[in-house]
Amino acid sequence: MFKELKLESKKRNELINITSQVEEVVIASGAESGICVVYAPHTTAGIIINENADPDVKTDLLDALEKMVPKIKFKHEEGNSDAHLKSLICGKEKSMVVEKGSLKLGQWDGLFLAEFDGPRNRKIFVKIVEG
Amino acid sequence: MFKELKLESKKRNELINITSQVEEVVIASGAESGICVVYAPHTTAGIIINENADPDVKTDLLDALEKMVPKIKFKHEEGNSDAHLKSLICGKEKSMVVEKGSLKLGQWDGLFLAEFDGPRNRKIFVKIVEG
Amino acid sequence: MFKELKLESKKRNELINITSQVEEVVIASGAESGICVVYAPHTTAGIIINENADPDVKTDLLDALEKMVPKIKFKHEEGNSDAHLKSLICGKEKSMVVEKGSLKLGQWDGLFLAEFDGPRNRKIFVKIVEG
Repeated sequence: MFKELKLESKKRNELINITSQVEEVVIASGAESGICVVYAPHTTAGIIINENADPDVKTDLLDALEKMVPKIKFKHEEGNSDAHLKSLICGKEKSMVVEKGSLKLGQWDGLFLAEFDGPRNRKIFVKIVEG
Repeated sequence: MFKELKLESKKRNELINITSQVEEVVIASGAESGICVVYAPHTTAGIIINENADPDVKTDLLDALEKMVPKIKFKHEEGNSDAHLKSLICGKEKSMVVEKGSLKLGQWDGLFLAEFDGPRNRKIFVKIVEG
Repeated sequence: MFKELKLESKKRNELINITSQVEEVVIASGAESGICVVYAPHTTAGIIINENADPDVKTDLLDALEKMVPKIKFKHEEGNSDAHLKSLICGKEKSMVVEKGSLKLGQWDGLFLAEFDGPRNRKIFVKIVEG
């Protein structure tokens, strides 16, 4: 099963919860057991898995990433090298386990599109391989 | 094949070698060829692959990660935002190749649970899809 | 389908585009749909996906990673702890979607071996699981 999701970010930096949309794809696939790959076909966004309970964790992660970008002179003229770097640090694909017909996540796990150069229209690839 | 491993960390920050336990799961699965996903269902731990020869590399990596955490005021009241950030930087899932019935790693590769908020009881998901 | 690619890096730090070599493996596999895992069996190199258009993005990413390495005293006597850390930050495996017989990447996506301790001879594992 392959599905392309679409979403719209509202801010330059933002973590958008996509857990339930991806879980819907897994359920719709009918796969009992397998691997689910979530991939962002963008170079200034990431896919991350982190805490989905206290929203302060999201703020802390975005603030820390901002601070981690070194204060150097970037050459890329679009002026968004910070976003490319954040995408590199976070990664833009994640693999998860499918068991008993649903995503097998941890208790506090949430899956997020990490927007670093919004607002933009974004796509997410969801692929499930059974086995 | 899906298997859940359990382990106990002893320190706040620690790299725990899980290579042989994961290899045992691969062998027990009987899979000749495929993909193995290792996933930590936690948001203050990671799964990493790095050098498994000189133990100084582990110390250097933990020290460097500690130093990379920016000195900003975190909002999350549990006081472990540094651990969430380290988990984000390292990632908490890794995909590996299975060939000839075993994990196909590099000569110096070791697979580690990266504990950033221990000591704790931790779980690891191991999933193998043949193909 | 499993294939091992070989390449030679020329500099200490370098992003080497491997997109077309990996796509050739996908096409040769005859897989219509599935998951492709690309894995670097090395601990001082990474596999990254980032912009493949403006070459300045590559320079900016390498410069930023260099600057992100903390100025601490590393213990590992080979003197390449910075390279181990960069490999950790970038990750050394990536999973991608295969659809309609080819890699389903974003418009600007390129797949790169990230060399952090070259020049060296390097290997890359490419594994495709259909489904």
